[in-house]
Amino acid sequence: MNKPTKPGDFDAPKVTTGALPASRKVYSRPARDPDLAVPHREIDLHPSANEPAVRVYDTSGPYSDPTAEIDVEKGLPRHRRDWLLARGGLEEYDGRDVKPEDNGGATGKYLAREFPVKHMPLRGLPGQMVTQYEFAKAGIITKEMVYVAERENLGRSQALENARAQIDQGNSFGADIPEFITPEFVRDEIARGRAIIPANINHAELEPQIIGRNFLVKINANIGNSAVASSIEEEVEKMVWATRWGADNVMDLSTGRNIHNTREWIIRNSPVPIGTVPIYQALEKVNGVAEDLTWEVYRDTLIEQCEQGVDYFTIHAGVRLAYIHLTAKRVCGIVSRGGSIMAKWMLAHHKESFLYDHFEDICDIMRAYDVSFSLGDGLRPGAIADANDAAQFAELETLGELTKIAWAKGCQVMIEGPGHVPMHKIKINMDKQLKACGEAPFYTLGPLVTDIAPGYDHITSGIGAAMIGWFGTSMLCYVTPKEHLGLPDRNDVKVGVITYRIAAHAADLAKGHPAAQLRDDALSRARFEFRWEDQFNLALDPETARDFHDQTLPKDAHKVAHFCSMCGPKFCSMKITAEVRDYAAGMSENERLDLEKQAAEARKGMEEKSREFLNKGGEIYIHAPKDRQT
Amino acid sequence: MNKPTKPGDFDAPKVTTGALPASRKVYSRPARDPDLAVPHREIDLHPSANEPAVRVYDTSGPYSDPTAEIDVEKGLPRHRRDWLLARGGLEEYDGRDVKPEDNGGATGKYLAREFPVKHMPLRGLPGQMVTQYEFAKAGIITKEMVYVAERENLGRSQALENARAQIDQGNSFGADIPEFITPEFVRDEIARGRAIIPANINHAELEPQIIGRNFLVKINANIGNSAVASSIEEEVEKMVWATRWGADNVMDLSTGRNIHNTREWIIRNSPVPIGTVPIYQALEKVNGVAEDLTWEVYRDTLIEQCEQGVDYFTIHAGVRLAYIHLTAKRVCGIVSRGGSIMAKWMLAHHKESFLYDHFEDICDIMRAYDVSFSLGDGLRPGAIADANDAAQFAELETLGELTKIAWAKGCQVMIEGPGHVPMHKIKINMDKQLKACGEAPFYTLGPLVTDIAPGYDHITSGIGAAMIGWFGTSMLCYVTPKEHLGLPDRNDVKVGVITYRIAAHAADLAKGHPAAQLRDDALSRARFEFRWEDQFNLALDPETARDFHDQTLPKDAHKVAHFCSMCGPKFCSMKITAEVRDYAAGMSENERLDLEKQAAEARKGMEEKSREFLNKGGEIYIHAPKDRQT
Repeated sequence: MNKPTKPGDFDAPKVTTGALPASRKVYSRPARDPDLAVPHREIDLHPSANEPAVRVYDTSGPYSDPTAEIDVEKGLPRHRRDWLLARGGLEEYDGRDVKPEDNGGATGKYLAREFPVKHMPLRGLPGQMVTQYEFAKAGIITKEMVYVAERENLGRSQALENARAQIDQGNSFGADIPEFITPEFVRDEIARGRAIIPANINHAELEPQIIGRNFLVKINANIGNSAVASSIEEEVEKMVWATRWGADNVMDLSTGRNIHNTREWIIRNSPVPIGTVPIYQALEKVNGVAEDLTWEVYRDTLIEQCEQGVDYFTIHAGVRLAYIHLTAKRVCGIVSRGGSIMAKWMLAHHKESFLYDHFEDICDIMRAYDVSFSLGDGLRPGAIADANDAAQFAELETLGELTKIAWAKGCQVMIEGPGHVPMHKIKINMDKQLKACGEAPFYTLGPLVTDIAPGYDHITSGIGAAMIGWFGTSMLCYVTPKEHLGLPDRNDVKVGVITYRIAAHAADLAKGHPAAQLRDDALSRARFEFRWEDQFNLALDPETARDFHDQTLPKDAHKVAHFCSMCGPKFCSMKITAEVRDYAAGMSENERLDLEKQAAEARKGMEEKSREFLNKGGEIYIHAPKDRQT
Repeated sequence: MNKPTKPGDFDAPKVTTGALPASRKVYSRPARDPDLAVPHREIDLHPSANEPAVRVYDTSGPYSDPTAEIDVEKGLPRHRRDWLLARGGLEEYDGRDVKPEDNGGATGKYLAREFPVKHMPLRGLPGQMVTQYEFAKAGIITKEMVYVAERENLGRSQALENARAQIDQGNSFGADIPEFITPEFVRDEIARGRAIIPANINHAELEPQIIGRNFLVKINANIGNSAVASSIEEEVEKMVWATRWGADNVMDLSTGRNIHNTREWIIRNSPVPIGTVPIYQALEKVNGVAEDLTWEVYRDTLIEQCEQGVDYFTIHAGVRLAYIHLTAKRVCGIVSRGGSIMAKWMLAHHKESFLYDHFEDICDIMRAYDVSFSLGDGLRPGAIADANDAAQFAELETLGELTKIAWAKGCQVMIEGPGHVPMHKIKINMDKQLKACGEAPFYTLGPLVTDIAPGYDHITSGIGAAMIGWFGTSMLCYVTPKEHLGLPDRNDVKVGVITYRIAAHAADLAKGHPAAQLRDDALSRARFEFRWEDQFNLALDPETARDFHDQTLPKDAHKVAHFCSMCGPKFCSMKITAEVRDYAAGMSENERLDLEKQAAEARKGMEEKSREFLNKGGEIYIHAPKDRQT
């Protein structure tokens, strides 16, 4: 209490740092561009495994690198700025002044502390290329493209030997997964609109990442303070925490006060793309009265967020006046917050949405900073009863039109999808989206396959997410156990992220991603060989795996024991399998043939007996009259 | 401490009783057989809902009926005994004496207390029909068939008005779900082998239930003490607890000592069918040495369990000597405990499995008590790498042969399935099973769609379970979060059951079960109308839903508030939807047509602009040479 305090001493958000169990951060350098350092995680195995470390995709940024110096007050290193300045076509300028309404008019002790460092924003110069889409169309490979190719390959310098076989045994529903990701492939996919690299030129702290059907399936975690609860400190840590467990993207869905300052802290400290829904902040600027929204307020909010470095915007421009009445008979009406804000505005003014009317203006703004579109599904179904209805699909068609406009304007685009959809109605969503939106990446919320399990909607939605990810969705927006009930805490965020990592990985496996099964195989070998520590360390959540094991068998000795708590020490199926291997290894070809002959004979005998019985069947009892009841 | 103790005062298992929130137990009486009282649960809604109570399927037995007298020392009422004695064809006899080895030789304080009441067992008289399959084949409708028909319909006396439409909008992959379940339909499905009613004539406490592709998807929860942990008290409560949350069936997978006494307590108190894997107990009788197993020990164990009232046996008769070497190159070998016990025996003796060789004898025993077969998949894959391999499918073909034998012998049969299977390899399992096993009900463990998430295998398997349930699996065996790591505790059992209720219900919805969506719709209406209490009460787990809500907004007032914690009081999408409804209701036909015209025109304009842009696209920049990198 007697220590002098300096400005940095208080209020500095505490974030989780340190390596994951048995893990090392490694950086690989693409041959084409060796000044790039692309991060991966390597999980070391027990020496008895006699296997190399298992390399896995790493979203956790410098926080999990014990050699990195983390200072949340300074933000992460802004390495991308050099790439961008070298590329040219950009100007540094003063930027918009922060206004009181950007923080919801918060003052004094209610105003969250400003981020201590100020950076001048960049924007594209007139007539110059800015976006990854523009460069790709022009045949140019950016550093971001090289980076994501290296990252998707986990730094491998060539395709895995069995890559073709892995792809062929999968079912990717017409996707075109390559054996090896080259920067050229990345560029081509972006130029076709089939993939995006969300990377605002003002998010210099970013470790770029690609979202598209022919790449690893990505996941998004939502964070954000609300009018009801939470602080800046919590939000920054939620971002760090979510990416530690595998969130590829984070959306800041803050409402209420301090939106601007909260977001600045998040972006300056975020290694992953940050998305927002700008209409939320615009609504705060008009005191929550939807009908008071104007294009001018919205436009100003877009520029504010572009300058801060938001990487993608959810824009509900597909919610049109003509579609609103289609939702009237729904069980759950309009459940998208952005969708209902716009519906309210349109009803109040009886005018077409200003997002739709000003769509080209929006494109011009976003292009100048390379902010990607996430075209919002404001009319997504919020109940099983409302799935795949006229309102939902009318909006999807409009999103398809808007996609083409945005592409023509040079912007990167992805499309948001539902929502609540029973299993048999999921695939049609994917098929329609691919067709209507020219294969632009689909980004879905779940979908939840039933409405009846509040408290478990990470699971109801994880089922739908795994399926739609398999069918071709490029990014899955997580749902936490608190969905529909309350705000997720730290543990909910983790459970949501792990559930969605499961869904994304299950989708990668089913699509036939050439490297997906490596981790399953490594873990299963560890399981088979009773390498308990390796099994924990290779798990998506090593802490929980270890904790669950220790609840039954807490002693350290059990972690090297050749049995587990399920069967106990006397009998173990894994032990027997080892004996089977010895047996099979010792079998001669003659013995094998002999066995097969015996089996065929026994089978023939069985079949005869079965026929015999069936012929007799029903005759051994006296038939009673039909429907007699006993 | 001074109170005198009576025999019933100590050691009596404590079980959970009482109604679920806002729920009443109701009994309906089938018109055809009004002396049967078939239980359902009715969930009362808030008066403002102006909706009748929502009736749901109820697996919880008398424990959730506040008017029932529960005395675990006496067991549940043995109402089925009257039905059976009235039906005839059975004899009461002394039964086998309990031997010390039945309880693993436990003595003194290590011997679990015997169940206080002794019942004489029943068995079929020579040449008389015993099994539901035999009666069905003979055209006879049993009381059990009437009971399950009433139960599947939730007591409705006729089909729902929109039943046909619901079925037609679903996709049941060739199943044949009727609009309304009649006893005749039940009989026909059983006679075709497409459904079973597991109902040992010595399980008189049972509330019968049907398992088949054209009925509601069922779930199974595994319990059982192990050599490492747990007691009788815990096991009885686990059964009560699991059925309270929705387990349709319970398997007692006990190993170690006291298997006989534990099982007696469970069965005498169980309203749901109890399954076992008799080889586990047989192995204990030979001190855990697999090669010491004999047909005689196994046969004696079958009779012991038949007399106690076990409703279905997992029998791994499809693991044949000729298939063992097919598992040698697997990543995880043989992971089924029963499968590996038999593999070990066959290797030790170099002989065909005694389960296969004595299959007809086993049928004769099981038929005499109407114990259903659950033909075990001893060679199921235990890793993604091993899915759908030669060993697995060779065994499945054999299970198909054995199914036909068992039918010819008059037995009811279901087939167990995997395991660890990636999503794209799930459907082939279902298709092959239907074909190989003549549409006998499939009963799968998950499948787990990835190996990399120990600690979350209720989720990895819930994804696979929902999918395979949709494709046609009749019963889903739950997996708890502790799978692969430790023994499930009370909370794990609940989480496993709820996860599998989600999977089963998602499957019912997707198959187009005519009544499945009623609960989703009721819950979604409650959600839309801010009837928080109704939303909790209609949830699969009302306690968790309420608890999660209260963590963010604990005040009682919030439970009637017309907003929720996600958006706060100022803005609410649900509120806006109410305004949309008013608007749509007030629209004239002319207004509607005018809107649609405007929309069509705007769309045309957009399309023209998009074409214009696209035609110009790429020309506004000077093309750089391909692959130039910036």
